[in-house]
Amino acid sequence: MTRGLFITLEGPDGSGKSTIAPLVFAMLKDRGYDVILTREPGGVKIAEAIRSIILDPQNTAMDAKTEALLYAAARRQHLIEKIIPALNEGKIVLCERFVDSSLAYQGYGRQIGFDDIWTINKFAIADHMPDLTIYFDIDEKTGLERIRKNRTAIDRLDSESLHFHTLVHEGYKEVLRTFKERIRIVDASRSVDEVKESVFDAIRSFCDQRRS
Amino acid sequence: MTRGLFITLEGPDGSGKSTIAPLVFAMLKDRGYDVILTREPGGVKIAEAIRSIILDPQNTAMDAKTEALLYAAARRQHLIEKIIPALNEGKIVLCERFVDSSLAYQGYGRQIGFDDIWTINKFAIADHMPDLTIYFDIDEKTGLERIRKNRTAIDRLDSESLHFHTLVHEGYKEVLRTFKERIRIVDASRSVDEVKESVFDAIRSFCDQRRS
Repeated sequence: MTRGLFITLEGPDGSGKSTIAPLVFAMLKDRGYDVILTREPGGVKIAEAIRSIILDPQNTAMDAKTEALLYAAARRQHLIEKIIPALNEGKIVLCERFVDSSLAYQGYGRQIGFDDIWTINKFAIADHMPDLTIYFDIDEKTGLERIRKNRTAIDRLDSESLHFHTLVHEGYKEVLRTFKERIRIVDASRSVDEVKESVFDAIRSFCDQRRS
Repeated sequence: MTRGLFITLEGPDGSGKSTIAPLVFAMLKDRGYDVILTREPGGVKIAEAIRSIILDPQNTAMDAKTEALLYAAARRQHLIEKIIPALNEGKIVLCERFVDSSLAYQGYGRQIGFDDIWTINKFAIADHMPDLTIYFDIDEKTGLERIRKNRTAIDRLDSESLHFHTLVHEGYKEVLRTFKERIRIVDASRSVDEVKESVFDAIRSFCDQRRS
């Protein structure tokens, strides 16, 4: 049985991941790649139930560490129920957000610390780290402008302060330093077409290289 | 501000914790101790919501590590919202089940491993370990007989196999070895009155010693 490839899309809010992901997914499918597109919590019932506790705007008493443990729990369940079975079938799994998001958002944004967030996520994902991560690089100001322009719904995370977003950017910088071997950085400040092509090229060349 | 005392009641199913806890709580109150009685998830809304995901019998796809992370999350929230504020007011907090339960049930019962469960719970509780733990000691067979006799409702945990209960007992043995300084062992195979008196005596002597 051929093991598939696990590819994550990461980057701060407003970096365009959600816009680009389905476009690249369609391009990969068109070229004959056996690929699935998912995102946390990925339609897995238990993970969705956990997510709804996290995002419930009534849960104002939510402690930052409780939140971090809940994200790790939802991640674990999504991994076990959806990602690993697809990889075992030899598929390419394209996943929007994974462990790096927690390192940036909970580790830095919520100031719990990178190492502590890494520790609980290591428990959750064990050795199931992504084979490749595409990082959507965007400066803080442009990212925030995009969020404000495209806003259709506000949840607890979107409404965080500018300071929080600054911290998340710092967190992603540490992610880039720590895991440089598996991360390809894409300039996400360009047009949708340009970003889409860059992401597609990065994924295609990685897949072809791994499988040759 | 005087810091209170954090006392946990631990032991396998059928060891009588839930029967004894309110009796000892009443005795302590009668003697003028400023005490609260709680148990996980302790009526804390977010922790209750987490617990309901864990115990939902429809969640048959629940992974053992997901479950362990959810217990740690619920524990954290209960600690932050209820236990720490009471301790800061100088109260004695009597809490049925805490970290030792996860070490025994998830670490051994679910076979995730003592050290891994300790790691994620260390994240959740930091340095807020109990000052004193009363361990309700009961042999496996007697514990199971009591559960079967008193059963009024069956949840996912009660219906576990005999093998699971054997593993939980093993887990508690490791808890006793690892944390002997903070644990007082009470023979829970005796009558309610005898166990109640022993637990009360152990708590009273500990509190009086700490405060003298």
